Amino acid sequence: MIRFECDYGEGAAAPVLEALCRTNLEQTPGYGEDFYCEQARDRIRALCDAPDAEVQFLVGATQANFTVIDAALKPWQGVLCPDSGHIHVHETGAVEATGHKCLTLPGHDGKITAAQVQAAVEAHWANPTHEHEVQPGMVYISNPTEWGTLYTKSELTELSRVCRACGIYLFVDGARMGYGLASQTNDLTLKDYAALCDAFYLGGTKCGALFGEALVLTHPALAKDFRYAIKQHGGMLAKGRLLGLQFLALLGGDGEAIPYLALTKKADAQAMRIRDAFAAKGCAMAYDSPTNQQFPILPDVWVQALEGKYSFSHMGAVEPGHTLVRFCTSWATRDEDVDALVADIAAL
Amino acid sequence: MIRFECDYGEGAAAPVLEALCRTNLEQTPGYGEDFYCEQARDRIRALCDAPDAEVQFLVGATQANFTVIDAALKPWQGVLCPDSGHIHVHETGAVEATGHKCLTLPGHDGKITAAQVQAAVEAHWANPTHEHEVQPGMVYISNPTEWGTLYTKSELTELSRVCRACGIYLFVDGARMGYGLASQTNDLTLKDYAALCDAFYLGGTKCGALFGEALVLTHPALAKDFRYAIKQHGGMLAKGRLLGLQFLALLGGDGEAIPYLALTKKADAQAMRIRDAFAAKGCAMAYDSPTNQQFPILPDVWVQALEGKYSFSHMGAVEPGHTLVRFCTSWATRDEDVDALVADIAAL
Amino acid sequence: MIRFECDYGEGAAAPVLEALCRTNLEQTPGYGEDFYCEQARDRIRALCDAPDAEVQFLVGATQANFTVIDAALKPWQGVLCPDSGHIHVHETGAVEATGHKCLTLPGHDGKITAAQVQAAVEAHWANPTHEHEVQPGMVYISNPTEWGTLYTKSELTELSRVCRACGIYLFVDGARMGYGLASQTNDLTLKDYAALCDAFYLGGTKCGALFGEALVLTHPALAKDFRYAIKQHGGMLAKGRLLGLQFLALLGGDGEAIPYLALTKKADAQAMRIRDAFAAKGCAMAYDSPTNQQFPILPDVWVQALEGKYSFSHMGAVEPGHTLVRFCTSWATRDEDVDALVADIAAL
Amino acid sequence: MIRFECDYGEGAAAPVLEALCRTNLEQTPGYGEDFYCEQARDRIRALCDAPDAEVQFLVGATQANFTVIDAALKPWQGVLCPDSGHIHVHETGAVEATGHKCLTLPGHDGKITAAQVQAAVEAHWANPTHEHEVQPGMVYISNPTEWGTLYTKSELTELSRVCRACGIYLFVDGARMGYGLASQTNDLTLKDYAALCDAFYLGGTKCGALFGEALVLTHPALAKDFRYAIKQHGGMLAKGRLLGLQFLALLGGDGEAIPYLALTKKADAQAMRIRDAFAAKGCAMAYDSPTNQQFPILPDVWVQALEGKYSFSHMGAVEPGHTLVRFCTSWATRDEDVDALVADIAAL
Repeated sequence: MIRFECDYGEGAAAPVLEALCRTNLEQTPGYGEDFYCEQARDRIRALCDAPDAEVQFLVGATQANFTVIDAALKPWQGVLCPDSGHIHVHETGAVEATGHKCLTLPGHDGKITAAQVQAAVEAHWANPTHEHEVQPGMVYISNPTEWGTLYTKSELTELSRVCRACGIYLFVDGARMGYGLASQTNDLTLKDYAALCDAFYLGGTKCGALFGEALVLTHPALAKDFRYAIKQHGGMLAKGRLLGLQFLALLGGDGEAIPYLALTKKADAQAMRIRDAFAAKGCAMAYDSPTNQQFPILPDVWVQALEGKYSFSHMGAVEPGHTLVRFCTSWATRDEDVDALVADIAAL
Repeated sequence: MIRFECDYGEGAAAPVLEALCRTNLEQTPGYGEDFYCEQARDRIRALCDAPDAEVQFLVGATQANFTVIDAALKPWQGVLCPDSGHIHVHETGAVEATGHKCLTLPGHDGKITAAQVQAAVEAHWANPTHEHEVQPGMVYISNPTEWGTLYTKSELTELSRVCRACGIYLFVDGARMGYGLASQTNDLTLKDYAALCDAFYLGGTKCGALFGEALVLTHPALAKDFRYAIKQHGGMLAKGRLLGLQFLALLGGDGEAIPYLALTKKADAQAMRIRDAFAAKGCAMAYDSPTNQQFPILPDVWVQALEGKYSFSHMGAVEPGHTLVRFCTSWATRDEDVDALVADIAAL
Repeated sequence: MIRFECDYGEGAAAPVLEALCRTNLEQTPGYGEDFYCEQARDRIRALCDAPDAEVQFLVGATQANFTVIDAALKPWQGVLCPDSGHIHVHETGAVEATGHKCLTLPGHDGKITAAQVQAAVEAHWANPTHEHEVQPGMVYISNPTEWGTLYTKSELTELSRVCRACGIYLFVDGARMGYGLASQTNDLTLKDYAALCDAFYLGGTKCGALFGEALVLTHPALAKDFRYAIKQHGGMLAKGRLLGLQFLALLGGDGEAIPYLALTKKADAQAMRIRDAFAAKGCAMAYDSPTNQQFPILPDVWVQALEGKYSFSHMGAVEPGHTLVRFCTSWATRDEDVDALVADIAAL
Repeated sequence: MIRFECDYGEGAAAPVLEALCRTNLEQTPGYGEDFYCEQARDRIRALCDAPDAEVQFLVGATQANFTVIDAALKPWQGVLCPDSGHIHVHETGAVEATGHKCLTLPGHDGKITAAQVQAAVEAHWANPTHEHEVQPGMVYISNPTEWGTLYTKSELTELSRVCRACGIYLFVDGARMGYGLASQTNDLTLKDYAALCDAFYLGGTKCGALFGEALVLTHPALAKDFRYAIKQHGGMLAKGRLLGLQFLALLGGDGEAIPYLALTKKADAQAMRIRDAFAAKGCAMAYDSPTNQQFPILPDVWVQALEGKYSFSHMGAVEPGHTLVRFCTSWATRDEDVDALVADIAAL
């Protein structure tokens, strides 16, 4: 079975594993207060051109999401998000478990617009009994989105402007940020994220690390005392250096040679090959994704033909006889596996 | 600086790291539903002689503690624990953040007795307005305790009997369980834990793994739907196999050759050497610990003399001129470092 | 200003106020453990033909809703409800503040169907990674609904059957239950509610009491230790007898002479007069409500004409030049005020 | 049975009941946004000489406590309180249910000192791993305390000074504030409370109202959006005017003629008569209370002799043959009942 079902099926990229092995028996303080974490923080601040940002490392994305949201909001505030938002549909109510409601907006290809946010916030305050409703306190989006699509710099800039005008936070889930940064259509840099968002993270788990997300808090109110939040929610890794080491390994080098970008660029290119192969067969794509997730709508017989040899995700029937599926590449995807898949698609 | 300040200062024991490297590019399903996790579960069930137990892997101990407690208790129930309990003093109120109160009992060398538990539960129900109080729903202890001491089989049996008679759960935090199982004075086996407790875990983080705790749920009511609890609290590692692999590596082999026991046995022996060195100098030990943590009370001048070369933990002044400190060995402690310390103690 | 904006604008019905004044200086135990509360519990159990039901009194409906939901659900469970559900839109995220997610289903005139519930529960369990989603644990509906509509006995029976088949609770918010029971189209009795639901309440606040909701818990698992939940959530009134006394006053007498039914029957009849007056003018009603809330869609000029003399609720523009409004009668509505309104409508 | 067991055994003082009856059929807006609540707010602000304070009304004291604490604290903050604090021992973990830990300090006659608070806060920040502990964010005390004792103006001033220096809130539970203000030894005024505290409330439930607590928020950060917190926690009474009306009735008039003070002054005087009666018999008082609660330590035979005719609270055995009991007077206590008790004590 060749797996295209997700981007967390393997271990870690070579530089990551090498770093862990090389330093294995060194002795360091725990809980992320070691030299490697400090170095990684400095590196991320430099890449973001955000010398005052707080950088903290968490083990996983669900943990990062609810820890940020819980730390940021007053008890009666909720978080605006697309109805496809990971926090709304795939995290077992982790945000609600911290007491906060997801306030969903209808997504367009997994994205929401600044106008939608502005309308929702204005509608709240226009309600004379607004204290009977959850108060919007933050916008949560992911980039790339759940459907692999990307916000443009213009869209993110406008979202940022509206959030600041409304006095609410903007938080970007970057679990797949590497695949976004490396995409051919992307026009957002880490510096843009740092300038436009109050909080965002560079996902490690899906982009070459064994595990780990590097959270950047640019808003001082979020940064203050944030380590308490991490500890309270079980996210403070005892051997915290493992997180710093991995991000140092992924973010070393220069420009396109930075492993985090080089690895994800290759995966995006592989995804484009898969997309093109389906397109050549006349398959519609449910979303126009320029990143590592592709969502073709396939005749059920093709699904059956492919799933003997490849694993991929079923997203549900879209019409009689056709199913929406997801193929996912990753930093670990091998060219020969893509070759095989492309050939098998062509032969359908 | 030679570090004796904690047991999580290094990476992982050799078999663990070898397993991670060997399997790095294999493709497996995520979230702990892979072959390695299944094997590790079977191995643990066999070691515990508990074929029906649910075994789940979590990343860290704080996470394991509050996830179990939150899943087990009704909203108005609290958890009885010693006043030195890790959940009460060192986890940033993680248990309270899930809505539950720590109901402390005065500890004796970090332990509480069955009689204390019985008295507390009876006092609750004897109160005619008991619904104005938090209802005891669970006993939480750690073994070894925060002070390195151990419950005997007789003590744990009695605690178990009282808990069952009172209709409350018994949960054992085993963050340092390896050091307990390997201690010369220990008379508890994994089978005993499985027979006597409703939930307990074998700590990996402090006993040779990079990270990870293996949770054993023997009570069916706790086992049901527990994976939702893990996911909701951010504890479901995407690359879950990393946890299964590590426990497989630590728990392989037979008898005393099982790395988990061999590594901790050596650390306990090293701790005994340190204890004897202090004893030979006439130092009192605050607690009579047969495990890897030692708590000597030292003249401040000795503290100053040692801390140029060694790192260890200050626990506070106990009388003018004397300080309680902690020296901690681990699976990674080198004999030459213990040799040096013992010699330096003798020379004080 | 004549107020038709809500059903909680006045104090209490005469028998309620009389009972409070008559007993004012009596001395009783607190917290609902007095003789009057016991009598009221017995009365409600008798009316419900549910001798084993637990009856508890709470101060208000929001409190009743989240206290029941929090007591009933495991931490990872959520509550299925119509998208117009009061818990979802008008309670400031009170349910989420206890850690539970509202799982909305599209409502039809404020109602959801057994088929929708069954489909949602089946879809959850059919998802191979269902532990990444919130597990449905309860159905919450209100009857009358937010739009004044009523579930029929057949609909509630079917909902009950599906909930039991799915192993989830059925909870009915009866904040306006009196107006439902007294409606001409109603075919549900208190005995039916007790037989079909796991929990429901008879609203007092909107049906003649100063405040208070009488909660009936027919499922033993919900009844157990429920008073802890009330106290923990701040709902245990010190002078609890005030609640028992009010329900005794409202539920005394026989058949249609029971004040709770007689008062609401009159209010429903007044609402029908208002509905007919609008219908005679050709106004569409947004919902076909047989109870005390009426939702006509009015030309904006008519809205302006009426609002100088009457207060009523604006629910939003439905099309250019037309607004959806709500007129609400109550146990306290005076016939002369309805006369005036009806005449003014006719004169529009 | 003559009841001295609590101060919430009767209904409401005459002016309160009269106001409720007089206004019963008036129509007002709901949720505390009516004219009576506005008047009551103004009256309280004037009495407190705090024109900018936010005043909100809640139904009961437990609700007031956890609503303020939850609104004030960050998720990782806890509340310092005496170990006898009502929030710690008599509220079913309501504070923990909102996610916050009670950080107890040993009380002296139910009081804690500024020095204790300062030491606790300093110890927290001195801990190099303070993010592993709950951060103190507020001091909660009650005045009168659980044992009827009173903080002096000097003590409260010092607590206030330390709290401000430490950057934490000071919150005073005034469930029995009337009995404190009216006590002969009291030197604190409402203006002092407003000047020294960030939040406090004037208890109505125990001081002449049917129910209700008037919360004064002097710190702007607490006042902002506080009505959301009330609604979310189920404390926003639909017929909110009932709260405003009651406080208007209790706080009308001038000086000692203000019912709130006149009623409680009489109750305090009655309590002094009971205290003196016990003292004349040589009974020790467990606490030196100048307010309406008295805590004599009685021989068990005396307890048995009195409890046939009087109800009072057993607080537990203090030594073989002696029991600590509580006698409580209230605004409703009749002089003839005190006469009888005093005579019966003298005859023991």
